[in-house]
Amino acid sequence: MFNFDFYNPTRIVFGNETISRLDELVPAAARILLLYGGQSARANGTLREVRDALGSREVQEFGGIEPNPSYETLIKAVDQVRTHRLDFLLAVGGGSVIDGTKFVAAAVGYEGDAWDILETRGASIRRALPFGTVLTLPATGSEMNNGGVVTRRATQDKLPFRSAYMFPQFSILDPTKTQTLPTRQLANGVVDAFVHVIEQYLTYPIDARVQDRFAEGLLQTLIEIGPLVLKESADYNTRANLMWTATLALNGLIGAGVPQDWSTHMIGHELTALYGIDHARTLAIVLPANLEIRREAKRAKLLQYAERVWQISQGDEEQRIDTAIQQTRMFFESLGLPTHLSAYKLGTDAIDALINQLDTHHLTALGEHKNVSLDVSRRVLEASL
Amino acid sequence: MFNFDFYNPTRIVFGNETISRLDELVPAAARILLLYGGQSARANGTLREVRDALGSREVQEFGGIEPNPSYETLIKAVDQVRTHRLDFLLAVGGGSVIDGTKFVAAAVGYEGDAWDILETRGASIRRALPFGTVLTLPATGSEMNNGGVVTRRATQDKLPFRSAYMFPQFSILDPTKTQTLPTRQLANGVVDAFVHVIEQYLTYPIDARVQDRFAEGLLQTLIEIGPLVLKESADYNTRANLMWTATLALNGLIGAGVPQDWSTHMIGHELTALYGIDHARTLAIVLPANLEIRREAKRAKLLQYAERVWQISQGDEEQRIDTAIQQTRMFFESLGLPTHLSAYKLGTDAIDALINQLDTHHLTALGEHKNVSLDVSRRVLEASL
Repeated sequence: MFNFDFYNPTRIVFGNETISRLDELVPAAARILLLYGGQSARANGTLREVRDALGSREVQEFGGIEPNPSYETLIKAVDQVRTHRLDFLLAVGGGSVIDGTKFVAAAVGYEGDAWDILETRGASIRRALPFGTVLTLPATGSEMNNGGVVTRRATQDKLPFRSAYMFPQFSILDPTKTQTLPTRQLANGVVDAFVHVIEQYLTYPIDARVQDRFAEGLLQTLIEIGPLVLKESADYNTRANLMWTATLALNGLIGAGVPQDWSTHMIGHELTALYGIDHARTLAIVLPANLEIRREAKRAKLLQYAERVWQISQGDEEQRIDTAIQQTRMFFESLGLPTHLSAYKLGTDAIDALINQLDTHHLTALGEHKNVSLDVSRRVLEASL
Repeated sequence: MFNFDFYNPTRIVFGNETISRLDELVPAAARILLLYGGQSARANGTLREVRDALGSREVQEFGGIEPNPSYETLIKAVDQVRTHRLDFLLAVGGGSVIDGTKFVAAAVGYEGDAWDILETRGASIRRALPFGTVLTLPATGSEMNNGGVVTRRATQDKLPFRSAYMFPQFSILDPTKTQTLPTRQLANGVVDAFVHVIEQYLTYPIDARVQDRFAEGLLQTLIEIGPLVLKESADYNTRANLMWTATLALNGLIGAGVPQDWSTHMIGHELTALYGIDHARTLAIVLPANLEIRREAKRAKLLQYAERVWQISQGDEEQRIDTAIQQTRMFFESLGLPTHLSAYKLGTDAIDALINQLDTHHLTALGEHKNVSLDVSRRVLEASL
């Protein structure tokens, strides 16, 4: 096991009828900016419920944070916070709204171009406004971690950022607040969480037994939940289990002390930036091909994955690995997520453009061994045609 | 799944060569009381290493915290902190030293008889001194939770306490610092962690899928580690896996949103208080009998435990449950922990005394259904003769 630090001070308030807890969780004198996405938060009453719980506190709103939140939009929220001297942010939404809120929290106190706080840009985040979240879409885990991803539309850059100051003070996880989500978004959430786990698990063995068991438990749970999300998605327990699983898939726990990959995410980000494909859908395209192309380096863990997660015991090693990758692909397809670029009418021209973007972003040595070069990424994309 | 809050702000610093991190973790101006147990912390050099890492900070020492730390001892540490106006506590040891340090942290600021902050005594803890820990004995999980247990020798009371203020600010988990531990204590640690998990898992099903999978993963890991602890206990990875497993067994995660039992612990505490049996050894005695006596109420979870943790698929339901309980008993015995009172030369007289103690402590409605009456506790103890 590698040495590690694990620190996660976000308070999770989980269950139905928990939005009223905002009154105890938000400081009484807070001057609040309420950030949200489209009009669904207003239409389904969640925004009203949040404002009611905040009582007589000063609350301003900032709506319109888009999926894959953009720098161009968020910088307006930064202006609003500065202009009105607001001092607490409250995100109501899914990963995009929460990621965007994190960016605003850090950018408000940053002097200079806030774009520079993104990971490959070099500036470090030294403080952030306090913020909390009300989660309405289980998937990204942003509600209990200190990272985010922001896109700059002008340049089609989609870049991550991370800071010790970026943990939500609290996150309210009320499964009933996901009731109006379409099945497509729930299915995306299942795949997003699944691939988050895979990126931290399917690398190489280092005798980190609990991390492996926890990762396998999350994967098994998602495999069980997948069909339920499609068939009985209104069931409280199904949504509750998806919500808590997705949170634990990316809160630092299963990644502590183990190697991590993340190449599927980095390649997928470019697919979203260039072609507007939903984040989870990019992962469904890239992961099976990535496992196929890099099966030698991942052999030991692929065999463990086959045995423990998919209960595959038949065949020789190559066959068991083939079956595991095939099961993974079929799981994504069964949830309605295509696993080939062709489903989006993308071909070899698109691959050239994607490789060019990876090069521009210096993403030329990805993966747990830092050996996923542009050439390897190209082969992964070709295998996903 | 039940509604729940999950909050755990303790920073874990895990791995070898991590004691030097104390310099960044402890405030530079801290006036420190260093609390420890017997002379082993001094003899094996850990105490020296800790003092070196603390540099020129003011450090006083308080040694001699015993296994099952006593109020009578700890109140002297409270006096020392008050007299010298110390403002930071650092525990170097296992669960007893850490539990004791938590009591001191809370008692220092409590006006009145500090014994009253224990759970059944009614006073609430409203503040505590900040403290950190250097863990030298994996078992209790106290390094990453907000509870403790203290014994009053005068009355043979062993009582728990808990408070939101009682999380360590940090805990350093360096597996190499357990190298001088005798096998007996490592084996105790395996069983202690195992029963911590069982108390939060083996109750009744409420469709909390991740909590179940995580609990099962911890149990499977402990079952794998058990023989390694006996055979190759000096191996770094074995100790690292035990350390992290024991921490996660009782940091609130697997217990969030699920029913909990804890009757084995409550009965076991009386065995320690009256007869001085090691905490983990009391659990090894009580648990198998407890599962046997309450098998009807626990039927569904016992079957799940048999299938997922012990891979038992043969026989009808009764046989599978019998086998699972028998495997549990054999696991404890294989680690050198007896599972019968007779191994300690205790008989029916002892049971009368133990039931009397439970009655005195108002522990008359234990378990996940609050229906473990004194009569049920008696039957459990009789089944463990």
